[in-house]
Amino acid sequence: MLKSFASDNYSGIAPEIMDAIVSANHGHQAAYGNDDFTKEVQKILKQTFGKKIEAYFAYNGTAANSVLLKAVLRSHHAIICSDVAHVATQEVGATNNLTGCPMFLVSHHNGKITAEAIQEAYTKATFWGHHGSLPKVVSIAQSTELGTVYSLEEVRAISTVCKANQLIFHMDGCRLPNAVAALNCSLKEATNDVGVDILSFGGTKNGLMMGEVMIFFQPELAMEFAYIHKQSLQLYSKMRFLSAQFIPYLRDALWHRYASHANAMAKRLAKGLLTLSGVKLAFPQQSNQVFIYLTEPIIKATQNVYPFYLWDPKQNLARLVTSFDTTTQEVDHFIELATQAEKSI
Amino acid sequence: MLKSFASDNYSGIAPEIMDAIVSANHGHQAAYGNDDFTKEVQKILKQTFGKKIEAYFAYNGTAANSVLLKAVLRSHHAIICSDVAHVATQEVGATNNLTGCPMFLVSHHNGKITAEAIQEAYTKATFWGHHGSLPKVVSIAQSTELGTVYSLEEVRAISTVCKANQLIFHMDGCRLPNAVAALNCSLKEATNDVGVDILSFGGTKNGLMMGEVMIFFQPELAMEFAYIHKQSLQLYSKMRFLSAQFIPYLRDALWHRYASHANAMAKRLAKGLLTLSGVKLAFPQQSNQVFIYLTEPIIKATQNVYPFYLWDPKQNLARLVTSFDTTTQEVDHFIELATQAEKSI
Amino acid sequence: MLKSFASDNYSGIAPEIMDAIVSANHGHQAAYGNDDFTKEVQKILKQTFGKKIEAYFAYNGTAANSVLLKAVLRSHHAIICSDVAHVATQEVGATNNLTGCPMFLVSHHNGKITAEAIQEAYTKATFWGHHGSLPKVVSIAQSTELGTVYSLEEVRAISTVCKANQLIFHMDGCRLPNAVAALNCSLKEATNDVGVDILSFGGTKNGLMMGEVMIFFQPELAMEFAYIHKQSLQLYSKMRFLSAQFIPYLRDALWHRYASHANAMAKRLAKGLLTLSGVKLAFPQQSNQVFIYLTEPIIKATQNVYPFYLWDPKQNLARLVTSFDTTTQEVDHFIELATQAEKSI
Amino acid sequence: MLKSFASDNYSGIAPEIMDAIVSANHGHQAAYGNDDFTKEVQKILKQTFGKKIEAYFAYNGTAANSVLLKAVLRSHHAIICSDVAHVATQEVGATNNLTGCPMFLVSHHNGKITAEAIQEAYTKATFWGHHGSLPKVVSIAQSTELGTVYSLEEVRAISTVCKANQLIFHMDGCRLPNAVAALNCSLKEATNDVGVDILSFGGTKNGLMMGEVMIFFQPELAMEFAYIHKQSLQLYSKMRFLSAQFIPYLRDALWHRYASHANAMAKRLAKGLLTLSGVKLAFPQQSNQVFIYLTEPIIKATQNVYPFYLWDPKQNLARLVTSFDTTTQEVDHFIELATQAEKSI
Repeated sequence: MLKSFASDNYSGIAPEIMDAIVSANHGHQAAYGNDDFTKEVQKILKQTFGKKIEAYFAYNGTAANSVLLKAVLRSHHAIICSDVAHVATQEVGATNNLTGCPMFLVSHHNGKITAEAIQEAYTKATFWGHHGSLPKVVSIAQSTELGTVYSLEEVRAISTVCKANQLIFHMDGCRLPNAVAALNCSLKEATNDVGVDILSFGGTKNGLMMGEVMIFFQPELAMEFAYIHKQSLQLYSKMRFLSAQFIPYLRDALWHRYASHANAMAKRLAKGLLTLSGVKLAFPQQSNQVFIYLTEPIIKATQNVYPFYLWDPKQNLARLVTSFDTTTQEVDHFIELATQAEKSI
Repeated sequence: MLKSFASDNYSGIAPEIMDAIVSANHGHQAAYGNDDFTKEVQKILKQTFGKKIEAYFAYNGTAANSVLLKAVLRSHHAIICSDVAHVATQEVGATNNLTGCPMFLVSHHNGKITAEAIQEAYTKATFWGHHGSLPKVVSIAQSTELGTVYSLEEVRAISTVCKANQLIFHMDGCRLPNAVAALNCSLKEATNDVGVDILSFGGTKNGLMMGEVMIFFQPELAMEFAYIHKQSLQLYSKMRFLSAQFIPYLRDALWHRYASHANAMAKRLAKGLLTLSGVKLAFPQQSNQVFIYLTEPIIKATQNVYPFYLWDPKQNLARLVTSFDTTTQEVDHFIELATQAEKSI
Repeated sequence: MLKSFASDNYSGIAPEIMDAIVSANHGHQAAYGNDDFTKEVQKILKQTFGKKIEAYFAYNGTAANSVLLKAVLRSHHAIICSDVAHVATQEVGATNNLTGCPMFLVSHHNGKITAEAIQEAYTKATFWGHHGSLPKVVSIAQSTELGTVYSLEEVRAISTVCKANQLIFHMDGCRLPNAVAALNCSLKEATNDVGVDILSFGGTKNGLMMGEVMIFFQPELAMEFAYIHKQSLQLYSKMRFLSAQFIPYLRDALWHRYASHANAMAKRLAKGLLTLSGVKLAFPQQSNQVFIYLTEPIIKATQNVYPFYLWDPKQNLARLVTSFDTTTQEVDHFIELATQAEKSI
Repeated sequence: MLKSFASDNYSGIAPEIMDAIVSANHGHQAAYGNDDFTKEVQKILKQTFGKKIEAYFAYNGTAANSVLLKAVLRSHHAIICSDVAHVATQEVGATNNLTGCPMFLVSHHNGKITAEAIQEAYTKATFWGHHGSLPKVVSIAQSTELGTVYSLEEVRAISTVCKANQLIFHMDGCRLPNAVAALNCSLKEATNDVGVDILSFGGTKNGLMMGEVMIFFQPELAMEFAYIHKQSLQLYSKMRFLSAQFIPYLRDALWHRYASHANAMAKRLAKGLLTLSGVKLAFPQQSNQVFIYLTEPIIKATQNVYPFYLWDPKQNLARLVTSFDTTTQEVDHFIELATQAEKSI
């Protein structure tokens, strides 16, 4: 049985989630989200994120991001985001295609962008008025693509810049659970309370079979969104099998348990590897993704046993991702393999 | 426990399919379709539809149709289809939006369009040359949106018109299993062998949790499609849970068993209802959708017990859809309720 | 020197307009519409169409229509228009491409559609709620593509239906001057006063070198339109050469003089031809386009001398278009040629 | 009478070009490019750029760029260009919107990008395969947005990288005449002979009323382009008035005369200003755009007399643009005003 540190997408479905799926398979239910499970989870989402939210489901993270962005953008707008943003680099331009908008990239520092850099990008982009695209959205990932986590103060500062410039604030939260577990706050405190306007809230990477939630904190941004939702290929006919997963995930705080576990495993892994010579972190380890410079012998000794990706092969920069199902044994075994490799040189 | 004749999307997951999903949840698997299940199902798809096909998965039927069409169209093209085509009427313009193309609608007869009418539409649309959109695709649904089934001869005739005019032939097969079960032929005979170029092959409406296959019978039409697939939001990270469903569905011919059963239930239902006065078919009953004129007393007596949709409330035109899980008891009970309603007038 | 009845696009530039172009070519002027001529014409446009309008220039009619429609539509919307609408049939789907929206076609009667038919189309399109595109615009051409003219009452009735259903009312006025000349009212009375929301106001077909005006009667519909205008390729750097044409065109009512003349020539032409046997109008002659059934001998005798298009060659249906520069001599000569052809049979 | 150094778009129409427009206004001509002038200019274009080219007209430079790029791109592709590319920064995302593609920006050096940097960007962009947009076009401006000129060797090197990576090579030649005049070669040598695949060839900024030519050096890239041309709003009904301008422009090498003059004026202007203290070039002066750091007194003394733009007000970075109609007197007067301003400090 393969286990890996390749991606939280390599892992399967957490047992409580699978139970929810199986339990939902009983008799007929109205299609397209008019089922009992979806109604129930809508209530829970409001309890979790705020009473006034509007929430819709998406099949995957690329969809959650790009369809949310489509909802609030017109083609003469632009998006400000980091130069390693998943929306800019890893989604085959899904957002560009659905919106017709360009992205104005801000250089990241440890995967993050600052309020100041966003203001600078906005000012530069609007210098020639209507001869250039009008920035309308700022998008950040929490946790970031490089495994770091924005502090609540950093998020609030970005929100402040957004408000000052009439920019809508999007959070790509495909790994929000890991960030929130690291921040030791509630989901609402990490999003609604610090000024996020639209959120992609992840499930797939954190033990679900599939599913993300697209959340509008300002209902007026969701106007006519039911049409956009279906047009953008996200209206699941047998919706109950998606929404049923989110019931225990949110109600029983499984999102927190899974993410905390993954974070802890990442911490243990980083700590163990950092004792080895030639190994150092590329970015601070703050969630469940560890970006770490390894050595060739370590890579050779480990990658075949526990597959993982090299982010930059020339520099032996590895990305090690832990998951809800990563075990202490696996982490320790990985460290052991690396330790032996180092010694055998 | 609710049962209905509202839609084959109201039904859940067939037991063999659920078993396949549960069984796939074991250890890690490479993401994005590089897993063992997807590799296996790709082989089976080639055995089923033809050695040279290229096949990709979609989450739902609207996606399968619109993403396939996006692959082969550019914005100066047009699509010829029927005026009741799902792609034209029930997908919030997903195809228009993804392709930028208009649809040229041909009046249906019993849900079908003829080769002659397609030729006529093509000739008319091209009269002014490059001042109008160039038709490039013909799209038909098999079975049709109105429950009827094209004969193989009818499909072949449409294919011939397509070839003669350099039109790509798309089949919306969200209910292809029901059509093929009715035609008593193989999936390949109903598609590849009669000249279909691109096919949306349905699973969701026929007992799967979710999933459709986008099939290119001419591999050159699929050039660079891996990019389009991901951009169009259809690249499922934990793909194994989708592809695993198709293994028994195809290998064990479950598609045929489920569809045949649904068709038989529809036939039984139609036959029973047609004995009642004031009841008549709107279109021939040929698959698992029965479009039937009922009477108000019948509707009142049945719709609350077994929900269904009125296609045209003014005319008491009902759509009754059967499914893999429709039982003889339910059908007979529905007929009984209708019969009692008629008598009590 | 060729003269024709092929199209008002075959004719050149009226002398007063050419003078305006030549006069504008003096020294430097700020680019992109910040020139003196554009400022002047903006004033005149407000005097002509209403104080609160927002007006922008387009290079051609297809642009005026599709860019205006882009401004007010999002991709989950739809347009209701006639089945012979230029936007639907003769613009290579420019509007479909720029908006992503489908068009719902209503059968025309003499080129026109009725308020009732629009209501019916709207009701039908919205029956399944957010499973279909939401109609948001009604578009009519005035004068129509078939040369007929909506009465002010007909336009007002359509406007009433639009208001009742929250539909934006677009008028394709590429030949509005001919319609208004026929209606014997002012430009404002024919548009603003009868409830038109957005207007493509034509110049090219009525003696200008090029140029149409995109007019928003409700300024809030023009929000951020300066960006859309440039993005949609319509921001002319040396704008003065376009706007300068509209100064005499509007200020000196040249639009009315040219259009009245063209209409009169069309009337004379129709009247003369209708005396011949086998000749009859396809649609009422009300502006500068005459759709008329001719005979083969007449076509042979005239088409080489004065080129024109056959709208339907099988039926000998010709479209004869007059222009600001059509002369009485040419009209009478055409009739004479036709008359001789008839006699010689 | 205003004269300026603000933009070559502030200038009017050169006298020879205006004569051509006036002369074309005679009788009727077939519309949409089927006129005698367009046929004539098509021949001249082939003589100028190569026998196998396909050429179409656009109204303006943004259109020429974005419509050409639309012709060769699909939405899963990307464009590699400089971070000051006009297509990326000054066209309100017209290309993003028409193609759905992102742009991958390469840092410029003096407005130019190198073959090496392009290769690096390509390699980086394709690292994750079909998870990112596939670069398909490299776009450079010649002369650049910052007034510099690529040598033929530099262009050839970029072409070589393009061929090696199956990238289509686009040249934004809105000021190509100025570059070619500076390079002292022929238009063909600067484009076709050094491997350019698609070219936007400018007229508007070089004395024409309006008009650019979209040129495909490989005819297969222009497949079905007539449809795209019209759909993209560039099919001018009275085309003769655009194409007639290009006849003397090309036949009589007016493009060269106008551009050489503008370049010479820019050189004279730069030379004169550089004698003043505190004045220095931001980028080498190689064509008709001078990017130059001035002093506040100089700006105050000159900008009101001869308007120009500050590219970076904080740094007193001015852009001074000369034109076909810039006179020695104006240049010298500007220098004199600046010299006096400096002295009076």
